[in-house]
Amino acid sequence: MAKSSDQNKAFGWAANDKSGVLSPFHFSRRENGDNDVTVKILFCGVCHSDLHTIKNDWGFSHYPIIPGHEIVGIATKVGKNVTKFKEGDRVGVGVIIGSCQSCESCNQDLENYCPQLVYTYNSRSFDGTRNQGGYSDKIVVDQRFVLSFPDGLPSDSGAPLLCAGITVYSPMKYYGMTEEKGKHLGVSGLGGLGHIAVKIGKAFGLKVTVISRSSEKESEAIDRLGADSFLVTTDAQKMKDAIGTMDFVLDTVSAEHSLLPLFSLLKVNGKLVALGLPEKPLELPIFPLVLGRKMVGGSQIGGMKETQEMLDFCAKHSIVADIELIKISDINSAMDRLAKSDVRYRFVIDVANSINSA
Amino acid sequence: MAKSSDQNKAFGWAANDKSGVLSPFHFSRRENGDNDVTVKILFCGVCHSDLHTIKNDWGFSHYPIIPGHEIVGIATKVGKNVTKFKEGDRVGVGVIIGSCQSCESCNQDLENYCPQLVYTYNSRSFDGTRNQGGYSDKIVVDQRFVLSFPDGLPSDSGAPLLCAGITVYSPMKYYGMTEEKGKHLGVSGLGGLGHIAVKIGKAFGLKVTVISRSSEKESEAIDRLGADSFLVTTDAQKMKDAIGTMDFVLDTVSAEHSLLPLFSLLKVNGKLVALGLPEKPLELPIFPLVLGRKMVGGSQIGGMKETQEMLDFCAKHSIVADIELIKISDINSAMDRLAKSDVRYRFVIDVANSINSA
Repeated sequence: MAKSSDQNKAFGWAANDKSGVLSPFHFSRRENGDNDVTVKILFCGVCHSDLHTIKNDWGFSHYPIIPGHEIVGIATKVGKNVTKFKEGDRVGVGVIIGSCQSCESCNQDLENYCPQLVYTYNSRSFDGTRNQGGYSDKIVVDQRFVLSFPDGLPSDSGAPLLCAGITVYSPMKYYGMTEEKGKHLGVSGLGGLGHIAVKIGKAFGLKVTVISRSSEKESEAIDRLGADSFLVTTDAQKMKDAIGTMDFVLDTVSAEHSLLPLFSLLKVNGKLVALGLPEKPLELPIFPLVLGRKMVGGSQIGGMKETQEMLDFCAKHSIVADIELIKISDINSAMDRLAKSDVRYRFVIDVANSINSA
Repeated sequence: MAKSSDQNKAFGWAANDKSGVLSPFHFSRRENGDNDVTVKILFCGVCHSDLHTIKNDWGFSHYPIIPGHEIVGIATKVGKNVTKFKEGDRVGVGVIIGSCQSCESCNQDLENYCPQLVYTYNSRSFDGTRNQGGYSDKIVVDQRFVLSFPDGLPSDSGAPLLCAGITVYSPMKYYGMTEEKGKHLGVSGLGGLGHIAVKIGKAFGLKVTVISRSSEKESEAIDRLGADSFLVTTDAQKMKDAIGTMDFVLDTVSAEHSLLPLFSLLKVNGKLVALGLPEKPLELPIFPLVLGRKMVGGSQIGGMKETQEMLDFCAKHSIVADIELIKISDINSAMDRLAKSDVRYRFVIDVANSINSA
């Protein structure tokens, strides 16, 4: 059980019910154990999952909840078995902070698919305590789940890579998008995930088309983010012209939507990868699957080894998120804007400079 | 355009409306062209698609329709450019009899995914005529779409391989089920497709579990067909015990059904392959896809090269369908029984010995 001492006192902003309103919250972190890294949090990204969770959209929220799983900070203490990090290192903490470390998935560096994986917040640690996320001043994490944050990657705009980045990077590798240069990838939805998918896709040498409901973001997608083309789903003629032209579609939309138009964009053997988590099941049209040997798969973040690989890849290719930096006191209005997709493209909280327990 | 002569006169059993009742029907086949093989039909399997089509379940039936795409017969005439076959050869004709022969799919021996593919019946040939299937005395087919029927493969029980066989063989290869021996395959639905999937799966060295709604077929599945185990979906405890145990599921059920229980049987990275064509979209549960990196894909028959490979594989492994041989005059009652899944496991029409135009 976690012991409480002055050293373990922690402070963050928590939601207390499904209104999702966040407010100051005092709690404690566990003692730094032999395998632990204690991290002073500098920045934390605001992920759409944070919003789903504080609103209990998926039905498994346990309040109070401090969200946040795109954490960049400084190691302030390391346990005696910690070999990967030392005090003063810049580190990252992402979506998961624990797993059984002995199952088939863990043995293959796929901790993200371990049946006992522990999420960074709204989950229970192995010691039985409920854990809390990165909208807070510090966190204590087993070294296996701490990432080295590469030199050259900014702490603020790099933070969203820890969830949004790996969420799009991992399926590109797993579903074979990177094996051959020049394959055509459609990115459906240009939000937190989508805008990073464009950048990482281009770095992998893919031809990238952004698929969006409105034409508003066209010039941004192409001129600022580097997409090759832009397809508006409401333009029936352009959608028709694009039938059968894509090898892959990454579907980042988490609102309910129809998959049929996305399937129609795929070539024979095309792959649709669903990354959003709509609250209700989607309709699966069987005919395009069968008649075009198409498939739809999913993917959830990535294992620790692959997440490190992704951070190093992004540092090498100068890939960061486009962010709006906010103070912790702005978080509730930021959540309101996020709910309306009114952000380009990720809020990041300047935790160290704005959190104040006094 | 096809010319009509005595030689081109043909006779079969056709459905004239969506009642689906089949009755004797006189028509004509096209002249044997330079690339054509004329086939005297010996046997024709009765596929569930035949039933869907004569009842217009999918909404694109054009009457009159002579169904049948599991055809075994004897070449009685070959065109002057035909090099693969000679008169007297035993040959097979399956689900498709034409394609553009120049697209990306055709160039990769995937005629089955050609956008201009021509189905054996209820489709239109390139000369504009509507074509008719194998519940008839003869058929004229371009040599590219004619298969050599291997010695040792019986003409009657081998006929269903031309659709049911390739429909399960091709996805086993494409979705990686055969790369490593001993993977665990669930076969959902033990009908025409399912019972051949068990046999081919075992020949590939897979561990095969039959997944069925009722326990009736358990001993047959294991003792007669060679399955390793049997799982009844209505047994909640056994379904629970089987969670996360399968690498692949081949879903052969074409009635509306829930995919969620099938997804739950899959391991992380597990693949569900849908082969049936339900009339309405299925519900796609997104959480198991994302949280377990699972996928659902489809597959439609196979290309001509792979279909030949499958026939040779089945001959080598003595794999045939379990059939009930019927006369053409029994076809309407056979269809009634098929609609109730009351057949073990495929009806085959003894065409040559029971069709009579007089």
